[in-house]
Amino acid sequence: MSARTVRVLTAGDVRSLMPFPRAIEAARAAFVALHHGTATTAAPIGLRIEPAGGEVHVKAGHNRAADTYAVKVASAFPGNAQQALSVIGGMTVVFDARSGAPTTLMLDDGLLTDLRTAAAGAVATDALAAAGATEVAVLGTGQQARLQVEALTYLRSITHVTVWGRRPEAAQRCASDIAARTGLPTSVAQGAHDAVRQANIVITATAATEPILDASLARPGLHITAVGSDLPDKAELDPALVAGADRYVPDSPAQCLDHGELRLAAAAGLVKPDDITVDLPALLADPSPRDPEAFTIADLTGLGALDAEIAHVCATEAARQGAGRLT
Amino acid sequence: MSARTVRVLTAGDVRSLMPFPRAIEAARAAFVALHHGTATTAAPIGLRIEPAGGEVHVKAGHNRAADTYAVKVASAFPGNAQQALSVIGGMTVVFDARSGAPTTLMLDDGLLTDLRTAAAGAVATDALAAAGATEVAVLGTGQQARLQVEALTYLRSITHVTVWGRRPEAAQRCASDIAARTGLPTSVAQGAHDAVRQANIVITATAATEPILDASLARPGLHITAVGSDLPDKAELDPALVAGADRYVPDSPAQCLDHGELRLAAAAGLVKPDDITVDLPALLADPSPRDPEAFTIADLTGLGALDAEIAHVCATEAARQGAGRLT
Repeated sequence: MSARTVRVLTAGDVRSLMPFPRAIEAARAAFVALHHGTATTAAPIGLRIEPAGGEVHVKAGHNRAADTYAVKVASAFPGNAQQALSVIGGMTVVFDARSGAPTTLMLDDGLLTDLRTAAAGAVATDALAAAGATEVAVLGTGQQARLQVEALTYLRSITHVTVWGRRPEAAQRCASDIAARTGLPTSVAQGAHDAVRQANIVITATAATEPILDASLARPGLHITAVGSDLPDKAELDPALVAGADRYVPDSPAQCLDHGELRLAAAAGLVKPDDITVDLPALLADPSPRDPEAFTIADLTGLGALDAEIAHVCATEAARQGAGRLT
Repeated sequence: MSARTVRVLTAGDVRSLMPFPRAIEAARAAFVALHHGTATTAAPIGLRIEPAGGEVHVKAGHNRAADTYAVKVASAFPGNAQQALSVIGGMTVVFDARSGAPTTLMLDDGLLTDLRTAAAGAVATDALAAAGATEVAVLGTGQQARLQVEALTYLRSITHVTVWGRRPEAAQRCASDIAARTGLPTSVAQGAHDAVRQANIVITATAATEPILDASLARPGLHITAVGSDLPDKAELDPALVAGADRYVPDSPAQCLDHGELRLAAAAGLVKPDDITVDLPALLADPSPRDPEAFTIADLTGLGALDAEIAHVCATEAARQGAGRLT
């Protein structure tokens, strides 16, 4: 009915338009904008889709400086693996914040979420992990385990990567992939705790519904970035481990209380949400010196404002390059 | 990256695929499915977009029988009117509930929301208004005022329509349009209360932020369907008027408490949310006789499950007819 056009991008377009450094800078800018109130994140929608056992997460964010907003649908359908389909899926729509008109459709099968989570994880890890921390352990063997490490290499020098997963063969494949993609030496740990003991930077990227790391692992100089929990029935870190952190920094206290690692720790009365005075947006807007003796945790649940900023940067770049198709 | 295709529909496609009777039956089926638990609605996302003064509402729903889910973005940007653009906008995506793959994109500029709201209003009005009620008053002069009346004519015999709006010239235009589209005699009222006194079916479809109807209007045999409030700063009915209803039926008690007419009435302590035992899904699943002496109110905030069902029916029909374009 109207003359305007919408640009349609595929996952391939998004991949070439958004190399990691660009995604990382967009994530950092969105965190800072959130702190300054020039970006907003709406409370997300979570849907369980039965009988397929799927999960759908809808996030929305607004970037005032960019004059765009974005709505992103991300899904995980475990049964897809049996049909050689991607478990992760989704799409993103960028809208003009002056008129509400959709400008760009990203039929990216969840790639934007992957990029956003990896970029946010890298930014958070870099802000908190001790300057001398170079040994990484990644728990989980999915796409995000690979991407977290890859994104981090753009910000920090890494010397070794230890991988742990419930299935040893999946851990081996993940370690091989990370080695191939980053050129780093990698190894596979027999247990989650073993992996953590071999590292000073730990990334948890699992779908665990019970904590996989307990309080005995707390030690000075350890940093953990937890990105796995995205629904209120997931948890990766024991409440006592969360409570034992010298600095616990959530991306959003409200979201982390609802479905991050803060949920169980607060429910157990071990962490008082009101005592959390610095969230990740605040930390990135006003970085404080990294304490090499601190035990730190970054808890990431994913913010719509980051999706919106990454989508905006991607849409802008697509328009500049004439990428994708107009419909 | 994948071989699958996505069907893209325009507003024109949706209009021809979804005549009112089809939208009305889809709305009714979704209400009943909600009651039986075979459809679900997620809590919606609401975003204010400044500085444009826009509103964005994201709704999601899942229809288990249809094996699809849908995410709908609806927007209202008042400034668009100055540029000859539609104030109302939006789009809907239908997904396969087995895999999470998007199947149909509706670039329908908000038409689906308009259809859903009108269809839900007609179904609610028909379920509650006395059988002999034939005189309609519509408050508000926007697209939804027109569509509510038009949709209702498919379910009930109407003999006269009175229109009221803050701007008399807009009310006159609305009355003329309704007359042209329905063939019904119409007139314009000088005041909102005058309009209500001339009718036994009242539809409020305004963007009012303060109640426009007070408790003095309560009377036996009056039915009000309120569809205007979709954010927590809107209200059309005085709390005492809501409290005075013999039957107050919300589409969703939770949503109406958050941003429907129930909000102010509950805040004033005049209606106890726990006392509401019958919502619209329950009423439509198990219709009770209409009481010609009752004063009834239907409070509609819009349910994602209705959007999902209407979008599903539209997508199915599009696939059957080969409508739209594949991308």
